[in-house]
Amino acid sequence: MQRYFMTEPYEAKKQYDITGENYHHIVRVMRMEPKQQVYLVFSDRIAIIAEIVEVNDEAVVLKEVAKELSEKELPVNVTIACGFPKGDKLDLVVQKTTELGCHKFIGYPAKTSVVKWDHKKLVKKAERFKKIATEAAEQSHRQFAPDIVLLEKKLELVESFSNYDKVLIAYEESAKEGEQSRFAQTLAETSVGESILVVFGPEGGFASEEIEEFEKHGGILCGLGPRILRAETAPLYVLSAISYQFELV
Amino acid sequence: MQRYFMTEPYEAKKQYDITGENYHHIVRVMRMEPKQQVYLVFSDRIAIIAEIVEVNDEAVVLKEVAKELSEKELPVNVTIACGFPKGDKLDLVVQKTTELGCHKFIGYPAKTSVVKWDHKKLVKKAERFKKIATEAAEQSHRQFAPDIVLLEKKLELVESFSNYDKVLIAYEESAKEGEQSRFAQTLAETSVGESILVVFGPEGGFASEEIEEFEKHGGILCGLGPRILRAETAPLYVLSAISYQFELV
Repeated sequence: MQRYFMTEPYEAKKQYDITGENYHHIVRVMRMEPKQQVYLVFSDRIAIIAEIVEVNDEAVVLKEVAKELSEKELPVNVTIACGFPKGDKLDLVVQKTTELGCHKFIGYPAKTSVVKWDHKKLVKKAERFKKIATEAAEQSHRQFAPDIVLLEKKLELVESFSNYDKVLIAYEESAKEGEQSRFAQTLAETSVGESILVVFGPEGGFASEEIEEFEKHGGILCGLGPRILRAETAPLYVLSAISYQFELV
Repeated sequence: MQRYFMTEPYEAKKQYDITGENYHHIVRVMRMEPKQQVYLVFSDRIAIIAEIVEVNDEAVVLKEVAKELSEKELPVNVTIACGFPKGDKLDLVVQKTTELGCHKFIGYPAKTSVVKWDHKKLVKKAERFKKIATEAAEQSHRQFAPDIVLLEKKLELVESFSNYDKVLIAYEESAKEGEQSRFAQTLAETSVGESILVVFGPEGGFASEEIEEFEKHGGILCGLGPRILRAETAPLYVLSAISYQFELV
């Protein structure tokens, strides 16, 4: 069943009118008709099953049938921060980390980032990522599309470390040295409801002064097993492992 | 340090001659010179650190410096079987599952597979996937590039179930019903050295008669958490979770 994200919080109403892009999708793309049902997901993450009552030229009119009960969100809030990589790789990372339950996505200019995105480019990229994230959140039946934040300066990332309960740095050198327990250990020490920031480098990895800075601000260096993962694969590994640990085990 | 896969098993020798594609990569792409070192990974998964002694017109000549000691392979043998999806999606799946430690990759025509690949196309695709897998295995520092098998008939897949210690079927409907423990439970019952086959559908999912057939042959239906993952994301989730469980916890 299709899911549509609403910009307002949930409020019990006799009917819900859908216009704009979602209207277009329901009427033109899905060609839906009265009596068919969809999920409406509100900004406060409440989701309802709604039935189409009427389709007119301006709006799709729906009525609430039931609340969606099951919890779709990861029980810990995971923020993924990626150094800007080359090309369109972040498109894939944003889509996949959204499917895998990411709470917030941060992009930042790392020391070895080759691309230089100015303010205008960052705004355009953020819009694009938000669209990708919203579509992926709808498709994966989430109650929430991750926030997208693209930073102009790495300093802002480091200064935000104190906002999280745990900060992990995915460090290739730790993996090479055979460090294989800090990630699992940190998850074991994390309670439901806590927030975790996981920082990843771009293709070129981290510079040693970045690692020093991250550690100084409380970042925990960790490896992700014995195989070297590409920059765009490591965030998927981390979110999969967190889901497995908190949702399946 | 670069890794190169050799087609022959390891044998202690005074010198190793590299020709062909690997020669081209060492000499033309990497422009390496005597005294520089690379990993040579043999077909029996023994890897050595080797130093370039000489580069001539026909071969790069190397001598063994040391054996590579650390184990890079997943401690359980995981085979990933994917229903043929649309477009080039398997390129990504083969690359990422290789990075994540997949032992063998199987493609098969599922009931809802839209593409129809004839024998000639399958041979061509298999070659392409083998190349992608080899490059990904080199980059992720593995001792082994996964086998690639593309089947003409689904029957061959079902008949192979008995070759594995465990067979899991990633079933979206199980996920929707809130089934969240069979995957973790199966991993908990799996010992190091055992083999697991995990079967995934194409975008359209499985037909009910496929599910019946899989169950009849011993397949265990399991969900992968509360969010619905795309066909190409689910295999990455499974391998990440297996790595986490067997290599990090």
